[in-house]
Amino acid sequence: MSGISIIGLGTMTRAIATRAIEGGNAVEVIGRDAVKAKDLAAELGSGTTAGTFGTTPAGDLVILAVPYAGAVPIVAQYGDALAGKVVIDITNTANPDATGLVTPDGTSGAQEIAEAAPASAHVVKAFNTVFGHILAQGGPLDVLLAGDDAQAKASVSALIETLGLRPLDAGGLEVARWLEGTGLLMISLGRHGVGNFDFSLGVNPAG
Amino acid sequence: MSGISIIGLGTMTRAIATRAIEGGNAVEVIGRDAVKAKDLAAELGSGTTAGTFGTTPAGDLVILAVPYAGAVPIVAQYGDALAGKVVIDITNTANPDATGLVTPDGTSGAQEIAEAAPASAHVVKAFNTVFGHILAQGGPLDVLLAGDDAQAKASVSALIETLGLRPLDAGGLEVARWLEGTGLLMISLGRHGVGNFDFSLGVNPAG
Repeated sequence: MSGISIIGLGTMTRAIATRAIEGGNAVEVIGRDAVKAKDLAAELGSGTTAGTFGTTPAGDLVILAVPYAGAVPIVAQYGDALAGKVVIDITNTANPDATGLVTPDGTSGAQEIAEAAPASAHVVKAFNTVFGHILAQGGPLDVLLAGDDAQAKASVSALIETLGLRPLDAGGLEVARWLEGTGLLMISLGRHGVGNFDFSLGVNPAG
Repeated sequence: MSGISIIGLGTMTRAIATRAIEGGNAVEVIGRDAVKAKDLAAELGSGTTAGTFGTTPAGDLVILAVPYAGAVPIVAQYGDALAGKVVIDITNTANPDATGLVTPDGTSGAQEIAEAAPASAHVVKAFNTVFGHILAQGGPLDVLLAGDDAQAKASVSALIETLGLRPLDAGGLEVARWLEGTGLLMISLGRHGVGNFDFSLGVNPAG
């Protein structure tokens, strides 16, 4: 039951927004193309609004649902418009071969985004280990997350629960690199062992 | 139904050996302490033998079930005694905080072990994303693996199936770093989001 703004108008935005609306959240979608944003808001319905790219988002939780290559520049462009926000980074940073990450050792996409964000914003890595088309199918899934601010993680976990999903805290933001590595692994599994990307990675109870 | 040799006498050896024996494999256990190795072989029963540390293992598949810190030196010490073998590296390479890996970017424990092994040996990363105590509980689990030699991976996959487990090929040995990162993530999840290490990470069918 929180206000969320989603920057980006692609598959993940559609999948998260649909579940977020069903969960009773106020949703705003934002894209550089204002017409497309309005069209998507109208299609999603249930009071979904279209925000203006680059200005202060309406939601306290701002989901960055754009490819990683665009994420840091967008956060830099937003600048103080993200002050005080919880920024949810859902990006994957695997290279095209899914053999390595595009960020150097010792950092991660999430940490680079945190560097670019205002000091009062809190970045939480989440959702990058969930394929968008699987999220769109409905059903319960595990959403692994990482971040340094306990309150921000609690807000993101509460949001995840309204989506009918299970939040699992993997630790501080330094662990985001390994969430991104696990995203890479899922892509590689989809190309090898599992084959059709029609799966999710999750935590199973023992036995 | 293959011959396997396991170097190391700890929890993972016990868990893998027990399931391997149940699956009809001939098992040899090997440790620096010959008395302990004989005791474990006797305890495991069903024809389990104790090998001599440092000499050619009996099995075509050799599982390196020792802490990573000891793995490369042991492989170097074995030298040509591992010629032609499929070496299964099950180590985890997380630092004590589970925030980073002890190997530098661009390599992995498995790749370092492959460097130290004879050219005719084939290293396959496997089992590092399965906690030993969960493996010991029985039940089906996913075992993610990676390696460069298709025939070696097929042998390891066949072994995994005899253990009542599901092998999932994650790609080439370069992906081993990300299997090790996922091992790190599991340790961090055990300390944060899941809490009691009483879980496994696996691939779930969608829906």
